[in-house]
Amino acid sequence: MLLARVTGTVVSTRKEQRIEGIKFLLLEKIDAATMQGKKDYVVAMDSVGAGIDEVVFYASGSSSRMTAVTDGKPSDAAIIAIVDSIDVKGEMVYQKDRA
Amino acid sequence: MLLARVTGTVVSTRKEQRIEGIKFLLLEKIDAATMQGKKDYVVAMDSVGAGIDEVVFYASGSSSRMTAVTDGKPSDAAIIAIVDSIDVKGEMVYQKDRA
Amino acid sequence: MLLARVTGTVVSTRKEQRIEGIKFLLLEKIDAATMQGKKDYVVAMDSVGAGIDEVVFYASGSSSRMTAVTDGKPSDAAIIAIVDSIDVKGEMVYQKDRA
Amino acid sequence: MLLARVTGTVVSTRKEQRIEGIKFLLLEKIDAATMQGKKDYVVAMDSVGAGIDEVVFYASGSSSRMTAVTDGKPSDAAIIAIVDSIDVKGEMVYQKDRA
Amino acid sequence: MLLARVTGTVVSTRKEQRIEGIKFLLLEKIDAATMQGKKDYVVAMDSVGAGIDEVVFYASGSSSRMTAVTDGKPSDAAIIAIVDSIDVKGEMVYQKDRA
Repeated sequence: MLLARVTGTVVSTRKEQRIEGIKFLLLEKIDAATMQGKKDYVVAMDSVGAGIDEVVFYASGSSSRMTAVTDGKPSDAAIIAIVDSIDVKGEMVYQKDRA
Repeated sequence: MLLARVTGTVVSTRKEQRIEGIKFLLLEKIDAATMQGKKDYVVAMDSVGAGIDEVVFYASGSSSRMTAVTDGKPSDAAIIAIVDSIDVKGEMVYQKDRA
Repeated sequence: MLLARVTGTVVSTRKEQRIEGIKFLLLEKIDAATMQGKKDYVVAMDSVGAGIDEVVFYASGSSSRMTAVTDGKPSDAAIIAIVDSIDVKGEMVYQKDRA
Repeated sequence: MLLARVTGTVVSTRKEQRIEGIKFLLLEKIDAATMQGKKDYVVAMDSVGAGIDEVVFYASGSSSRMTAVTDGKPSDAAIIAIVDSIDVKGEMVYQKDRA
Repeated sequence: MLLARVTGTVVSTRKEQRIEGIKFLLLEKIDAATMQGKKDYVVAMDSVGAGIDEVVFYASGSSSRMTAVTDGKPSDAAIIAIVDSIDVKGEMVYQKDRA
């Protein structure tokens, strides 16, 4: 899975029928070493109710369909977790409410 | 899913039998931060009736087969939505008929 | 799917049993904006009878197994169409017999 | 599969229900020629009990779901082996307890 | 499929149960235009008995599980053929026993 920050929303009226009612979030991938954005974006379906600016990780490919929200849908990226904290070699490099 | 702009069409007479009758569109991936083309192209099957210059997002891999049009076909990229608007941190960075 | 030009053939005697009798073509990916080769190569199975120098597009991943030739085989790239023409914003940028 | 070093852990409370109880490790991909980190990170599920600083290899995509731990889960990266040694052309370039 | 040269072996004692008894080879991807290594490595399962320095091509992703050796296993890369020769536009650019 890849780490990313939720940066926006994408709205579509004309879309494949199976994805009616799904929320599409714009994610910017982040570098785990610095927690900075990589200016590399992906549109993901949301299975956890993530909000703007939250750090998440998402599953790609067929694995992104293994959630209650995306099952059987043409999803190739789905947020599966909101990150609370990241610990690198015993040091906390990210903590949600102190970011 | 990735954001892209429809830039052209690809025509083929000699092709795998299962993709007879399908429309192939040439997409240029776009950078969500600037909405500029990235000079990176992909041929996608179309499940939504997208037209030249429209901004869309498409699903890759096996997920691209989860549409009414591409089911069971050798598709690794299918347009699944025409984008109306993109909102980044409360600011509308793209709106279809004002682009 | 990605655009590529057929540049060669790959011959193998010792191979996985399921791919006996299949033709392996060497493809060079091409840039759709210029139709120039990108010096990036992939070995693809052929489901359409493509020949040297023809422009094709191929499917990657599990989708490459959705052809009569590759079904159930360890294929991650299969040519699914020989390109006749590519039209970008109303201008014909490639036409098979005038290339 | 790709070689990587376990560099940290990622904690999440709000996540897709199917991944409750799974441990998420932060991996840094390594260059097999030098065994140095590539500053390219991925979050992986762990099927083998890997620990910080261990060199592992992980499976990506649908293949990462073919373990006892990840079966049916939205995993696109799972550690499947802890590396004891790497031998390149008869020379041992990495050995676990001498690294 | 991608061309690569077998450069080494990877040994692991602690691994996912389903991959017990499988041989893991370290591959260096090669540039088909020059047959030179690209310093980009992947660990692959072997379905054909490839040896050090042999040029092979391997299948990635779910397709790598479509061999007798890898069926049902967490493989995302499997060698499926040992290359005898590569012919580019009528010129033999690689021949196994003359390399």
